[in-house]
Amino acid sequence: MNDLSDKHLTPLSELGEFGLINKLTQNIKYINKTTIKGVGDDAAVIDITDKKILISTDLLVEGIHFDLIYTPLKHLGYKAAIANFSDIIAMNGNPTHLTIGIALSAKFSVEACVELFEGLKLACKKYNVDIIGGDTTSSKKGLFISITVIGEAKEKDIVYRNTAQEGDLICVTGDLGAAYVGLLLLEREKKAFLIHPNEQPDLQGNEYIISRQLKPEARLDIIRLLKDYHIKPTAMIDISDGLASELIHICTNSNKGCKIYEEKIPIDPTTVMAIEEFNISPIIAALHGGEDYELLFTIKQSDYNKIKDIPGISIIGHITEAAEGINLITNNGSMQPITAQGWNSFRK
Amino acid sequence: MNDLSDKHLTPLSELGEFGLINKLTQNIKYINKTTIKGVGDDAAVIDITDKKILISTDLLVEGIHFDLIYTPLKHLGYKAAIANFSDIIAMNGNPTHLTIGIALSAKFSVEACVELFEGLKLACKKYNVDIIGGDTTSSKKGLFISITVIGEAKEKDIVYRNTAQEGDLICVTGDLGAAYVGLLLLEREKKAFLIHPNEQPDLQGNEYIISRQLKPEARLDIIRLLKDYHIKPTAMIDISDGLASELIHICTNSNKGCKIYEEKIPIDPTTVMAIEEFNISPIIAALHGGEDYELLFTIKQSDYNKIKDIPGISIIGHITEAAEGINLITNNGSMQPITAQGWNSFRK
Repeated sequence: MNDLSDKHLTPLSELGEFGLINKLTQNIKYINKTTIKGVGDDAAVIDITDKKILISTDLLVEGIHFDLIYTPLKHLGYKAAIANFSDIIAMNGNPTHLTIGIALSAKFSVEACVELFEGLKLACKKYNVDIIGGDTTSSKKGLFISITVIGEAKEKDIVYRNTAQEGDLICVTGDLGAAYVGLLLLEREKKAFLIHPNEQPDLQGNEYIISRQLKPEARLDIIRLLKDYHIKPTAMIDISDGLASELIHICTNSNKGCKIYEEKIPIDPTTVMAIEEFNISPIIAALHGGEDYELLFTIKQSDYNKIKDIPGISIIGHITEAAEGINLITNNGSMQPITAQGWNSFRK
Repeated sequence: MNDLSDKHLTPLSELGEFGLINKLTQNIKYINKTTIKGVGDDAAVIDITDKKILISTDLLVEGIHFDLIYTPLKHLGYKAAIANFSDIIAMNGNPTHLTIGIALSAKFSVEACVELFEGLKLACKKYNVDIIGGDTTSSKKGLFISITVIGEAKEKDIVYRNTAQEGDLICVTGDLGAAYVGLLLLEREKKAFLIHPNEQPDLQGNEYIISRQLKPEARLDIIRLLKDYHIKPTAMIDISDGLASELIHICTNSNKGCKIYEEKIPIDPTTVMAIEEFNISPIIAALHGGEDYELLFTIKQSDYNKIKDIPGISIIGHITEAAEGINLITNNGSMQPITAQGWNSFRK
């Protein structure tokens, strides 16, 4: 578990803002030839002349989006970047540049910041993204991370969420619900740790599920595969708040309805096993869990023959006219309207 | 003073994140034809094909950067936008697009958020900037604002901070120190208010100084004027941390030294009068106060005849070789090295 109070660590006040920025950015090498000026001036300068520019911003707040008791800072940095890359990818674009703002209280050391940045840099290296700017400051309490990702796409390739058509097939990548079950397991171990601090966490056999929560990936591989197969989705969104919430976004924004089939929703067997003890059904985790960072997209029926052989993509239903509503056909054949129970951070 | 606890206001939990976003963004009209898709998808889409793209990110943290006891939320939104526009302008660019992330605790109402956004929108309207995306979430405590501004500039127009040359003249716009004295006055009135809550704040005659702190402007007018006069600065930075700190940035980044003259530093007479009671000399406020959002730039000596007649620009000194150091010539003729005492938010 993270030890942020070690007395051998360097207090932030010793370096100050500019010293901290220098330390965090000293080894940054720019990968993209579009990066003209990165860190170190009033603004960064980039050059994307032949494509459209995609921009997305996310905030991550300690105690709301993450718990440092069980989230290693390096993983947190990695995940923060991935969550943003996923937004660019969900537009069928390539993430290329990133700016980061960090506000943190005096309980954090310089070394803790460096850890967080290591994770961020690792994700950026893996996805060929340049860190081109940011801001660091103190907070009265807690850690706040704000990331803005810039990406690029040709205009003809961009996929919005409001362009699904009646009859389109609904596809999801990977499997769903594991990140949420990973969170449940980590919360369980946190409770155990607070009661018996010397016992080791019991997470054996659940490495996959835990990694889905702590170190997710964004599906850049999928949008590349789709290009290779000459498939352009008709609408696309990433699954950050849960399948139900994202489906509702696509349907309401496109002014359409849909039918999806419980039996078609991809859930990993280890997710099904691990969720048993929590008295939650796996389909609920898949529909409402969130943080899987998989892609939900629609394709024309005529692309069925092309997509059916791509591994890791499940066809879970189809788009209907709006009047039919947004529905789940359960395993016993009944039809249930899908409602958003996705996460509302403002709910007490 | 802001009343955030009024029971007639709408709790954030009632609207939820998507409801709040809808409310905040419902009247947003896009001004720039480069805005292809704004709020409402995984990412925004912009189209800047014939120019370079400038990007800057800033974090504003309650209790660190602002105090809601004397900062109206509308002013805060306005200032948050301006501080970022200023970074783009300091690259000799035009701010065009903005994303905003807000994390706020349950003490804030929907109406408070709307107020904040009103200020943001007002600044965006005045500077022709489109709000194209963002994120809202809750925090355990306090208000956090993260803004990323995107701007554009032709490559030949971009001005960096590391390109000042020996012999260049050093210029500043407007006057310095007023924003800091405004802060001192507001802090004084806060103390008085906490002791005698029913007394009216005593700020008469100091409207200019207070407005410099609460509702600053960015100097887009100046970079347009410089273009009209065919002057391209050799280096430029905006004055957010105080003249001393910014001067050191330009000199160390350009590997140069400088001499500036105390008598040439523009300070408004009301600043000089108002600072008297605080036992701080006006030059200290100008050198180390910050938040003036004026521009500090260098020009070739050969541009002297062009610039000398532009109102609102003061020539305060010149660039020397690095070995001469970074120096202030005081009014009594002595030479003092300039050190950064600019603000360090990590200092306790």
